[in-house]
Amino acid sequence: MTWLELADDTPFGLDNLPYGAFSVGGVPERRIGVPVGEHVLDLTAAAAETAAAFAPLLTSGVLNPLLAASPGTWREVRERLRDWLTEPRYADQLRKHLVPQGEVTTHLAFEVADYVDFYSSEHHALNASEIFRPDAAELPPNWKHLPIGYHGRAGTVFASGTPVVRPRGQRKPRSADAPSFGPSRLLDIEAEVGFVVGAPSTVGTPVSTEDFADHVFGVCLVNDWSARDLQAWESQPLGPFLAKSFATSVSPWIVPLAALDHARVEGPKQDPEPFDYLRTTENWGLDLALEIRLNGHLVSSPPFATQYWTAPQQLAHLTINGASLRTGDLYASGTVTGPERDQRGSLLELSWGGREPFELPDGQTRTFLEDGDEVVISGTAPGPGGARIGFGEVRGKVLPSPG
Amino acid sequence: MTWLELADDTPFGLDNLPYGAFSVGGVPERRIGVPVGEHVLDLTAAAAETAAAFAPLLTSGVLNPLLAASPGTWREVRERLRDWLTEPRYADQLRKHLVPQGEVTTHLAFEVADYVDFYSSEHHALNASEIFRPDAAELPPNWKHLPIGYHGRAGTVFASGTPVVRPRGQRKPRSADAPSFGPSRLLDIEAEVGFVVGAPSTVGTPVSTEDFADHVFGVCLVNDWSARDLQAWESQPLGPFLAKSFATSVSPWIVPLAALDHARVEGPKQDPEPFDYLRTTENWGLDLALEIRLNGHLVSSPPFATQYWTAPQQLAHLTINGASLRTGDLYASGTVTGPERDQRGSLLELSWGGREPFELPDGQTRTFLEDGDEVVISGTAPGPGGARIGFGEVRGKVLPSPG
Repeated sequence: MTWLELADDTPFGLDNLPYGAFSVGGVPERRIGVPVGEHVLDLTAAAAETAAAFAPLLTSGVLNPLLAASPGTWREVRERLRDWLTEPRYADQLRKHLVPQGEVTTHLAFEVADYVDFYSSEHHALNASEIFRPDAAELPPNWKHLPIGYHGRAGTVFASGTPVVRPRGQRKPRSADAPSFGPSRLLDIEAEVGFVVGAPSTVGTPVSTEDFADHVFGVCLVNDWSARDLQAWESQPLGPFLAKSFATSVSPWIVPLAALDHARVEGPKQDPEPFDYLRTTENWGLDLALEIRLNGHLVSSPPFATQYWTAPQQLAHLTINGASLRTGDLYASGTVTGPERDQRGSLLELSWGGREPFELPDGQTRTFLEDGDEVVISGTAPGPGGARIGFGEVRGKVLPSPG
Repeated sequence: MTWLELADDTPFGLDNLPYGAFSVGGVPERRIGVPVGEHVLDLTAAAAETAAAFAPLLTSGVLNPLLAASPGTWREVRERLRDWLTEPRYADQLRKHLVPQGEVTTHLAFEVADYVDFYSSEHHALNASEIFRPDAAELPPNWKHLPIGYHGRAGTVFASGTPVVRPRGQRKPRSADAPSFGPSRLLDIEAEVGFVVGAPSTVGTPVSTEDFADHVFGVCLVNDWSARDLQAWESQPLGPFLAKSFATSVSPWIVPLAALDHARVEGPKQDPEPFDYLRTTENWGLDLALEIRLNGHLVSSPPFATQYWTAPQQLAHLTINGASLRTGDLYASGTVTGPERDQRGSLLELSWGGREPFELPDGQTRTFLEDGDEVVISGTAPGPGGARIGFGEVRGKVLPSPG
């Protein structure tokens, strides 16, 4: 089926073919790449050599020009990739553009326009409520009527591997009379799934749930680093700000929607029935299996299919007021948390607000992140014929606060 | 003092010299311009003709390359402008680059990177509290400890003059059992002052209040259009989202900080004393006089000098967690409201939550905006020797919702 040697269980087989930006060795030039098996295909070079019509979209070192093209172009590039990698006559020409994965440095795949973060896991929202109000846990009254979201800081969305410096800020524990200032003591993660907007939309024209795949190019993993103590003190009445804006990490490879056909499942039943603009006819629940590792130890396996609001619903909500989309807009699902204890997508939940430290296999315990901790979130989706579609991973290490 | 004929009371005299983007007639090409008296100097053309060293910063049709340059370059351009406009030997060369203001179309002056909106008027925050909780009005507990802010949508920051389509969305009046969907019934404005970041900062390195003028290039007027009914229903727990993201309008001319020397005043006394990172040694209160006109009628005159938190404090707060600044970041003051009734910066306050309709001189009354209403926010600051520094205006007309 391919002239490449690919392991049967590779997460980067011909049914995946995600896109990212990479460089090799000390050369600063960034190129568009597609991981295939143990290699990354230098798509920029391959397209130039074959004089592909889409070659000019691949020369800027970021995906934005490709994202800005139409879904027709996205399909064309994907079909060409599959031709190249299956037809033996291309083998000699392309083999020289395959770089071993171990030799590449990945970068932020696209320039982020606006970044929005949702809050669409019912289990997460209920856990959060129960942790802070044990006697009166409930979803906010609007929660089942609309996918709650807010804007985050696009300028601090970072490539996987970028270290995260523990942020400083103000916090006031309930027991304290006055706020204090210093490094966050409750540094946390949120395991999320991100959706990358390709084709823009027009101001004043909402994007319907049916038009989701005409605008969204692909999917990545997101770690929405969060300082819980800063968040608790600053968030009323206008929402989280500095508690989130210091860093958001994303995985290097953007998996195109076309690679997720076999992952599409019905979303959870929604009750009450949502307003018309939030109704969907197609299945856009996604059966993605996430894994969170802390210093190498698996600590949670959140199942994305349990999310209450789906990505097309989030997009329709985001634009129902007439707001337009730009190429490079990123919106994230919110923390992905399943019904089980080992499916929680944040340390806040895993340690139940810090009251129940959890043990790592090496005997250490954690409530929130300590300096030097490294968090890796990875994910896979079902592909055709038992194959797995790999999302790779988003990685980040906590560095101590300088002050 | 100048070879130009300038009225003594012009808001665009030689002590102002703000920057913007404009085009002329049907020609789509955008150029950088500086309003002077009744004209706009085509700075792009003038710099090219005189082979100024900074000419390459002015060719992209937006201010971003100039913004990204150092404060030294900003000073150099400003000094050159003043030379050109005062030395008679430049008159012939420059006169042909002066376009009557009536002939230019202004555009968004810069590409917005991240947009942050603060909430820094004590009078506004108290009014909002009193309107919604008449019996228990108070500032949020964090309000005097930090300048509350949140991220908005950069992609829907529009040039002055862009019509604003009434947004649709969900709302649930307190009296209703369930939310409903439709065009906003409580469409409002917020008169604000915006600060435009020029020189970027490094991730992990907070910008101190002292370094404010090394990063912020200039100041503009902002109308933060707000749908109060959408806001009330969606904002808990993560803050305003669709209630604000449909449109934010900004004035065309960015007034450089250097033009505001005579407007600098001591900020209000702050009690409690803020944390170290929020303390300031220089005066950066700004004595800007705003005016809000609704369908041509003056309805309010908010005094910016009454803001509790100053712009350097907002910038220091924005970055204290290590978040970096990018060229083109815009942060707005929050609604500017003074102590008097005719100094309120929103219709929410002017109509006291809609309970006290206010009368316009033409006999009409308003609570919130009606379709076809046009809002103009203008502003001036004191200049040297009794001169006024004009900010021009930010204008927008409400169009009916399409659905």
